[in-house]
Amino acid sequence: MLMKAQDAAELLIRVRERQPLVHNITNYVAMDLTANVLLAVGASPAMVHAEAEVEEFAGIADSLVVNLGTLSPAWLQSMQRAAAVAHERGIPWVLDPVAAGATRYRTEAAQSLLALRPTVIRGNASEIMTLAGIHGARPKGVDSSDDPGAAIGAAQTLARSSGAVVAVTGVTDYVTDGETTWQIDSGDQLMARVTATGCSVTAVAGAFLAVSDRPLSAATAALAVFGAAGRSAARHARAPGSFRTALIDELALLDADSLAQNAAIRSA
Amino acid sequence: MLMKAQDAAELLIRVRERQPLVHNITNYVAMDLTANVLLAVGASPAMVHAEAEVEEFAGIADSLVVNLGTLSPAWLQSMQRAAAVAHERGIPWVLDPVAAGATRYRTEAAQSLLALRPTVIRGNASEIMTLAGIHGARPKGVDSSDDPGAAIGAAQTLARSSGAVVAVTGVTDYVTDGETTWQIDSGDQLMARVTATGCSVTAVAGAFLAVSDRPLSAATAALAVFGAAGRSAARHARAPGSFRTALIDELALLDADSLAQNAAIRSA
Amino acid sequence: MLMKAQDAAELLIRVRERQPLVHNITNYVAMDLTANVLLAVGASPAMVHAEAEVEEFAGIADSLVVNLGTLSPAWLQSMQRAAAVAHERGIPWVLDPVAAGATRYRTEAAQSLLALRPTVIRGNASEIMTLAGIHGARPKGVDSSDDPGAAIGAAQTLARSSGAVVAVTGVTDYVTDGETTWQIDSGDQLMARVTATGCSVTAVAGAFLAVSDRPLSAATAALAVFGAAGRSAARHARAPGSFRTALIDELALLDADSLAQNAAIRSA
Repeated sequence: MLMKAQDAAELLIRVRERQPLVHNITNYVAMDLTANVLLAVGASPAMVHAEAEVEEFAGIADSLVVNLGTLSPAWLQSMQRAAAVAHERGIPWVLDPVAAGATRYRTEAAQSLLALRPTVIRGNASEIMTLAGIHGARPKGVDSSDDPGAAIGAAQTLARSSGAVVAVTGVTDYVTDGETTWQIDSGDQLMARVTATGCSVTAVAGAFLAVSDRPLSAATAALAVFGAAGRSAARHARAPGSFRTALIDELALLDADSLAQNAAIRSA
Repeated sequence: MLMKAQDAAELLIRVRERQPLVHNITNYVAMDLTANVLLAVGASPAMVHAEAEVEEFAGIADSLVVNLGTLSPAWLQSMQRAAAVAHERGIPWVLDPVAAGATRYRTEAAQSLLALRPTVIRGNASEIMTLAGIHGARPKGVDSSDDPGAAIGAAQTLARSSGAVVAVTGVTDYVTDGETTWQIDSGDQLMARVTATGCSVTAVAGAFLAVSDRPLSAATAALAVFGAAGRSAARHARAPGSFRTALIDELALLDADSLAQNAAIRSA
Repeated sequence: MLMKAQDAAELLIRVRERQPLVHNITNYVAMDLTANVLLAVGASPAMVHAEAEVEEFAGIADSLVVNLGTLSPAWLQSMQRAAAVAHERGIPWVLDPVAAGATRYRTEAAQSLLALRPTVIRGNASEIMTLAGIHGARPKGVDSSDDPGAAIGAAQTLARSSGAVVAVTGVTDYVTDGETTWQIDSGDQLMARVTATGCSVTAVAGAFLAVSDRPLSAATAALAVFGAAGRSAARHARAPGSFRTALIDELALLDADSLAQNAAIRSA
């Protein structure tokens, strides 16, 4: 356990030192928070989506983050092109299948990206169950109708079938490569009251993947760092507005001690 | 008067309990604040605009919010489709005709949506006067050149001709169904110094419509809640930056007492 | 020196009095901060990009801001149309060539806009060197790989060839019309840890251009005001999250004394 928090701290230091260029094709709602979260952890974010440049840009980035939030056909095409370039060149990439299962269009879009072999998939329980082909409760728009715990099996199945590391986040977070499964207890209930926190932790996973060739460790570290910052932030916050501000502050201020105190990583 | 603030408090509690799914097709500037405001009042926001899924999504939402802010032809088409589905199925929907009157394109877009029978229309004085066909001062971009008070007659005319409840907001807010007209004294001058507060209160009206079948009460409650939170927020704020943060906090923390103290609802 | 800070203060007062309508065609990441920053300095921002109305809107605005951040072909076309209208009618306009040099598409887009004769160009060192045709280090996505000081010569060359006032910003800011070059020492290291601060200062330059017919003074004043607010904000901030909030507050609260204390303008 302790060792794991130290691993996460070492990766965080590496992100701050190398400032990896993280290429995001993400949704309109999440762009501002995502960019600020990536800057706070020490990465260099860029949001680039035009078909005319998305392949060239993916090729110079250290990692790619694809998020289906405010999807449309032109953006989906750019996501597919960028993901294909990332896959060909061995650049790690993360898929956030926002609201997969809520509409047919979204489910099919997520499946088309799954075929391009993401390194990590990060979703809520409903989204992961949808991608694993397991029928859960119908998601409530972008919000899950199932608890993360209910999706552990689905995450393991999806990890094995896709070859990706799969993270299910919610009150508790789980990360698995289909064999080893970690549980991260951190975060705060206010997290779900701020828009785009899920999208942002996906992007943090992208930053950590850029400095590690072990996707399971990178994704676990990203969730632990985000969760620990969230737990610290809750102490500085009155409600969701001040929590959002404090979350960004804490991501920038987080040190190894605070990480160890605020995030417990254990075998699930 | 007191009764009215209690009514508003009851609807707020209902929003928090039921967490209605509010489908937003809104502008790029307002998305982040709107989503955070909806989460703060207790609703479940989703931003979905692609033609391929907008009708399916509108059909599963508890209410729909259409905002013309950063309009373009593809988005307008999605707005029209979603509004048509909402109208057919009896799902309440709100129209925010941002900058109607500023350009011909915008005025015509707003009129095309008016024909799809919104449940509530929320705008500033210039926008409401434009939709009512009354010639006011030319709006200054997205900002009104007229006071809300000058638009009361226009709001009543528009309510009667469109069948919608019409809200005109500014220093003072007015809501009318063409017969009864309420005036809400709350808010703070800082409100106009933060972008997208108008768009956000429109979305809050969407959340309240989802839990009430009385549009006049729902819209009045939404304005009272938003205004009361604004008045409280001003006490925690130095200037517009900290006001924005405090506004979200206060929306989440607002209780019936604070609502009654900070929002006076009376007959106009 | 002192005189210059007073000039800047006088222009700031003029912005607050006249509340110029600033038409922005900017990127998705920057829209929220840009609008709030413009409101904080006293301007009236509008974000309008549809081809169907962009020319009409540019014609009623007091200035135009064009920012290439999240570029795509349809947006580029609107930018070109709006810039052409501004140029024809003598409405001042500012170009922010985000990530010019990072991809070929972006470099060509920036050059096509340069041909429409912007009044002011604001970029980081890499972007300005690219537009000046000087080969620097390849930019790291949207971030510069060169210091502003290394780009002074490039800025002067670009100013002379384009007829625009050119601002290079970073740790220190420089502004030049090709003959006179000012250096502004202000700001704070936290500035670079918040997304879209560069885009926002570009928009502030747009607001100042709307109230002055001397582009060099207007751009210098905008950088001094933004930098002075940043320096004050750093005293109220723990880290990037609270800094962003404080920056907006300080822009709204800034007075002539604070401006003189926190921004040193001198000959470069």
